[in-house]
Amino acid sequence: MDAIPILTLKRLPQYLDVLYQFKKAGLKIVSATKIAVFTDIHMTQVRKDLSYTGVIGVPKVGHKIDELISAIEQCLNWNDTSSCFLVGVGHLGSALLGYQELQNKGLKVVAAFDTNPALINTTIHNIPVFSLDKYADLADRLHIHIGIITVPVDHAQNIADLMIANGIVAIWNFTAIKLHADADVIIENVDMSASLAVLSRRLAEKMHKAIPKSQDSPEAIIE
Amino acid sequence: MDAIPILTLKRLPQYLDVLYQFKKAGLKIVSATKIAVFTDIHMTQVRKDLSYTGVIGVPKVGHKIDELISAIEQCLNWNDTSSCFLVGVGHLGSALLGYQELQNKGLKVVAAFDTNPALINTTIHNIPVFSLDKYADLADRLHIHIGIITVPVDHAQNIADLMIANGIVAIWNFTAIKLHADADVIIENVDMSASLAVLSRRLAEKMHKAIPKSQDSPEAIIE
Repeated sequence: MDAIPILTLKRLPQYLDVLYQFKKAGLKIVSATKIAVFTDIHMTQVRKDLSYTGVIGVPKVGHKIDELISAIEQCLNWNDTSSCFLVGVGHLGSALLGYQELQNKGLKVVAAFDTNPALINTTIHNIPVFSLDKYADLADRLHIHIGIITVPVDHAQNIADLMIANGIVAIWNFTAIKLHADADVIIENVDMSASLAVLSRRLAEKMHKAIPKSQDSPEAIIE
Repeated sequence: MDAIPILTLKRLPQYLDVLYQFKKAGLKIVSATKIAVFTDIHMTQVRKDLSYTGVIGVPKVGHKIDELISAIEQCLNWNDTSSCFLVGVGHLGSALLGYQELQNKGLKVVAAFDTNPALINTTIHNIPVFSLDKYADLADRLHIHIGIITVPVDHAQNIADLMIANGIVAIWNFTAIKLHADADVIIENVDMSASLAVLSRRLAEKMHKAIPKSQDSPEAIIE
């Protein structure tokens, strides 16, 4: 299985979303040009990204939508369901437990953990919540490889350590801290604080009308 | 107000988090070196990022923690509270309504909107939920500049258009689609699908044991 560049991986879900919409609208065939228009991604980039899926379109005609959807889903492993654990059943954790999109994208939370007695031994959106003390025991029995961390920032590293010690090889980290782990552990961050930082500052700059948006630093363009 | 590079903005919350932890632990002074160790960001980068805050440390001593916290909060405009609207009160939207961290970071949702009759005229975490029909009217009365979008993907662009037509200049987009808007509208995306795509694929690659992680593409390194 060849490595796909990270930026391609991040764009594939955007292609999927427009493909689902085209399919819903009754279309059977789509060109890379049309995908480019709808995603606002350059056509050359779309073609290059789609080449990683292994699907070859017909020149001047395009791609079969069903075929392309299957190929992208397979690339992302979203046609297979992986079980995962979630630790931290606060607002964000609870929301993820109820978030149907995760399961559509191949991720099924089979158990959640918290230290709050009011939550332990309840179910949230049909997913059982266990005491954190039970973590090692359940991990041992269920052989789960993916862990979601939605705890407060100052507990995040401890939870990551616990997960890694008990068989987790991929962590989806929703906290703002950068987790330390061996290089062979896959860590993917959804950093809302970083995103909010950019939004807040850009808005403050705009309201102070100091600098037009186009004068963003070169560093921003590289990203 | 000078523009701060986007990557610096994204790192500032990480510095803040360790500074809060140091403060909680009773420390008064911190060196850039120590911040570098705790955030796992290179010291040179930490120094450069902190220089944007305008705080000047004492050589061989460091920065006053309180001063640095205030300076970063001010850079991010997190010491001011901005009111915002949220549209789409599903699992994710509801979670954000209850997410105290947002308010700690200067963002207060004053009203939420949905089309689901079961939600309209209720309050969630003390925030009133209105019919989407009321949006223009409330926007007109409250002069809100920030909008959060947590609707299903195929409604996102319509909601963005509605927001922009009614005074929103900064959108925090939690859907997977890229929104189209004039260049002067600030759009910041929290794209969980993109993040999950990377996680799922990397795990699949690892499980197939084809490629060591270090052979990531050059594109990934630039990012």
